[in-house]
Amino acid sequence: QNHARLLITCLDQPGIVAAVSKFLFDRHANIVQSDQYSTDPEGGQFFMRVAFDVPDIKHDENLREDFKTISEKFDMDWRISFADELKRVAIFVSQQEHCLLELLWQLQSGDLTAEVPMVISNHPDHRELVESFNIPFYHIPVTKDTKKEAEAEQLALLKDKVDVIVLARYMQILSPEFVSQHPGKIINIHHSFLPAFVGAKPYERAYERGVKLIGATSHYVTNDLDEGPIIEQDIHRVNHHHRVDDLKRIGGQIERSVLARAVGWHLEDRIISHNNKTVVF
Amino acid sequence: QNHARLLITCLDQPGIVAAVSKFLFDRHANIVQSDQYSTDPEGGQFFMRVAFDVPDIKHDENLREDFKTISEKFDMDWRISFADELKRVAIFVSQQEHCLLELLWQLQSGDLTAEVPMVISNHPDHRELVESFNIPFYHIPVTKDTKKEAEAEQLALLKDKVDVIVLARYMQILSPEFVSQHPGKIINIHHSFLPAFVGAKPYERAYERGVKLIGATSHYVTNDLDEGPIIEQDIHRVNHHHRVDDLKRIGGQIERSVLARAVGWHLEDRIISHNNKTVVF
Amino acid sequence: QNHARLLITCLDQPGIVAAVSKFLFDRHANIVQSDQYSTDPEGGQFFMRVAFDVPDIKHDENLREDFKTISEKFDMDWRISFADELKRVAIFVSQQEHCLLELLWQLQSGDLTAEVPMVISNHPDHRELVESFNIPFYHIPVTKDTKKEAEAEQLALLKDKVDVIVLARYMQILSPEFVSQHPGKIINIHHSFLPAFVGAKPYERAYERGVKLIGATSHYVTNDLDEGPIIEQDIHRVNHHHRVDDLKRIGGQIERSVLARAVGWHLEDRIISHNNKTVVF
Amino acid sequence: QNHARLLITCLDQPGIVAAVSKFLFDRHANIVQSDQYSTDPEGGQFFMRVAFDVPDIKHDENLREDFKTISEKFDMDWRISFADELKRVAIFVSQQEHCLLELLWQLQSGDLTAEVPMVISNHPDHRELVESFNIPFYHIPVTKDTKKEAEAEQLALLKDKVDVIVLARYMQILSPEFVSQHPGKIINIHHSFLPAFVGAKPYERAYERGVKLIGATSHYVTNDLDEGPIIEQDIHRVNHHHRVDDLKRIGGQIERSVLARAVGWHLEDRIISHNNKTVVF
Repeated sequence: QNHARLLITCLDQPGIVAAVSKFLFDRHANIVQSDQYSTDPEGGQFFMRVAFDVPDIKHDENLREDFKTISEKFDMDWRISFADELKRVAIFVSQQEHCLLELLWQLQSGDLTAEVPMVISNHPDHRELVESFNIPFYHIPVTKDTKKEAEAEQLALLKDKVDVIVLARYMQILSPEFVSQHPGKIINIHHSFLPAFVGAKPYERAYERGVKLIGATSHYVTNDLDEGPIIEQDIHRVNHHHRVDDLKRIGGQIERSVLARAVGWHLEDRIISHNNKTVVF
Repeated sequence: QNHARLLITCLDQPGIVAAVSKFLFDRHANIVQSDQYSTDPEGGQFFMRVAFDVPDIKHDENLREDFKTISEKFDMDWRISFADELKRVAIFVSQQEHCLLELLWQLQSGDLTAEVPMVISNHPDHRELVESFNIPFYHIPVTKDTKKEAEAEQLALLKDKVDVIVLARYMQILSPEFVSQHPGKIINIHHSFLPAFVGAKPYERAYERGVKLIGATSHYVTNDLDEGPIIEQDIHRVNHHHRVDDLKRIGGQIERSVLARAVGWHLEDRIISHNNKTVVF
Repeated sequence: QNHARLLITCLDQPGIVAAVSKFLFDRHANIVQSDQYSTDPEGGQFFMRVAFDVPDIKHDENLREDFKTISEKFDMDWRISFADELKRVAIFVSQQEHCLLELLWQLQSGDLTAEVPMVISNHPDHRELVESFNIPFYHIPVTKDTKKEAEAEQLALLKDKVDVIVLARYMQILSPEFVSQHPGKIINIHHSFLPAFVGAKPYERAYERGVKLIGATSHYVTNDLDEGPIIEQDIHRVNHHHRVDDLKRIGGQIERSVLARAVGWHLEDRIISHNNKTVVF
Repeated sequence: QNHARLLITCLDQPGIVAAVSKFLFDRHANIVQSDQYSTDPEGGQFFMRVAFDVPDIKHDENLREDFKTISEKFDMDWRISFADELKRVAIFVSQQEHCLLELLWQLQSGDLTAEVPMVISNHPDHRELVESFNIPFYHIPVTKDTKKEAEAEQLALLKDKVDVIVLARYMQILSPEFVSQHPGKIINIHHSFLPAFVGAKPYERAYERGVKLIGATSHYVTNDLDEGPIIEQDIHRVNHHHRVDDLKRIGGQIERSVLARAVGWHLEDRIISHNNKTVVF
């Protein structure tokens, strides 16, 4: 109820922590958790996350306003989030349901905390499932010819309604225009292998190569396909007994748990992106 | 060279971080990494580790002295370590060499940074090995009847010469008197299973039970046998193909890597113990 | 459609594999996968699983009958299962839904293949959920005084209707009488820690002890509480930042994936129990 | 002493297992472990490994000769190895010692069983270390201009003296001519990331990208650089706190354990390569 999180990125320089600590101390905030990290104390990049409680935070209208004296002094990128202002998540999905279902289920059980104002899909398949969770479902087909219109329709639906977009196995590539409307706010999940198998039929090629590990990576979407800042990764051990279908099934299990962790960390404001990299506190 | 670490434990209360930050800021310290954690912002326990650089730290004789104004105000348990004051590690070993060898090797390669003024063993077996690393080796046999004298001899050797004692598969139980001479400064490693197999022949019993995971736990030694604060744990997957000897061999691999990580974290002042628990920053 | 699995346990002795191979060869079976394992070639226990295809297996009424000439010669415990004879699973659940939901979902998606003729619970909570999967739900309250009658009622429902019982966080201890009715056919899941925390409030105690790993174990139920043959185990790394609630949440994630793997292996006839141990092929 | 291993690859067809089993049964062999695997029972590839004991196997001169009646019938690739005919391993190393040292140490402790007739290096650094294990050390410098002569010198040393070559962080690319002299007998280790970072300075790029997992892959060397059949892979979790040097250090730990496992499986004849893939039994 009184819980807030302050996230900061700026050039490292003496006095940042002292200034932030004093600011919170003067406002009678209790610091619950504080993490900071510097790429290099001399001219590197400084990252900080402070989770804190402020009594009657709701009456403290000016917390963000007041912090500007500090943020401007140190030229900070920063934000303050309040835990009781639930983030609004739009889920994009195609035909595979495993990631969608994991998210809906964790939201229902309280393992994830967010609002889901909409699920958008280029296929009609999951309408019944989504609506059974009392979430509006929008079917917006996408073809090569209609992609521009489809994205316009998606953007209109999303406008001012969502804080983060989760691509839960959404098998369409978003245009740079779309991505630029939600910078740093789109989370994707994709399979990962050692070595990587770029291109079509990755599981078939991983099988042919006899990989011993298969994995998944969740990352923020940038305009470099599957190349945005990595949020979370995990793997599972496999062996020659596993057929292509087994690899896909196990891959799906990893995808849903990795995506759910990444989304959870985003919702708890644990992630700061910088250049093409995340700091996860 | 100018690198130091400050570790703090105290009751959580407003103003700690602000005070510490200002102290370091006033002394022109660059904070390299800072971690803090509170069990409960209201009356809980507060833990903090700050790694920082101070120019000409060697001329700054009074850093520890000056910090007392803060530490006394907040009633802190605290310490400041300087990275160039190498910790002195005594390694205790019996007949199994794998943990000893891993430590010696990582010390040699620079993966671990410490001085090793002595290796003490109740068996003569590893004299040649230890001396080949130019480390003094002391053979102090221990029997039920001579344990008291043996420990007295060990303590005399250790006195004022070591900062931490690593039990690298030392198969003797240290007396409460011995432990009380080096409180919080003795690191042990032992096998761990799910479920636990208390008592003799644990690998045999794990095999008979068909466990699917075997593991190891490194912990600080207290007078509750194998019950001190846990520093690190890890496991490896096994199956029915693994015979008792395989389990022991794999267990040994886990033991040496878990122990080396635990020792490394201790050497880097990453660990704060409180009650029967560690915080590893 | 033509897929079958043969599972064998007997004393190891020369000629077993030759006899089994010849039997299958003579019947024009294609061996898809074969695994065998012997605890000791001299007087040890021999385990074998053969997955094979037989054309028109349905017309081959006498496969089981014919195999008796071999099984009797070697005094085998054995069974032949046909993949198209779906196993019938009864799920027992209390108030926590995560394991139930994982099973229902994997059954729906085809990751698990079985029939679920009933879900039985000592609480009414999950009726709607279960019935939404078109599975009959039976609420049978259990109190200390009514346990005997409740188990009688459960057994009556189960009689001749199920092949395996999955305790999906069913928080009641089954009586020896109940267990003896379904020997080797009851699968349980429970949390596991290093070290074990026997008794009440294990997560609280794991938190207080500062464990670095939490896990789960799935096992067959015998009359030694939580001591039956282990089928599968897994762990997840945690640290001091994780509060008791986090540990419980992460523990729940491990429980559901470990239980689902164990159930899947049982359904695919991959598990042979012997003494208090499983061989999982 | 009486322990042997039979490895078979051939087109899958009915009767293989029956024939092999009968062959071993007729010779009074006790099968200790048997694994088989078929990519597809209809026209797929069949793989089998049988570990067995034969009394007085040394007097059974004709085991290999006799098996030809079976191998020719089924057109098998096959081999029989005797556990007491130690494999001879040549280790190639450059300046990094961690993989070399792990192998030497495991060989010394008996975790690996082999003879090491030579260590070959393009640098002189590890002579003393290697010779302290009583193993001949050959320093053969390699430059762009002398590579051909250097390889000729290496091949002359190896000729008829070794069964397998382990590249323990040997930082030279072997020519196709060299590889063709030891087909399927050269084991390499290299770092692996998700995603892959092809080219120079992979750890630096992994750091810049903020990967959450770093790993290593051991594989047989073919003429596709780092693209031969994968034997073993593993990963370790990292985070933003880990600097480039930490990643390298952790990567080294994974490399040495992955390589040691791969070499161990090769020495125990657990690996069959086919096309560009391994089956590890």
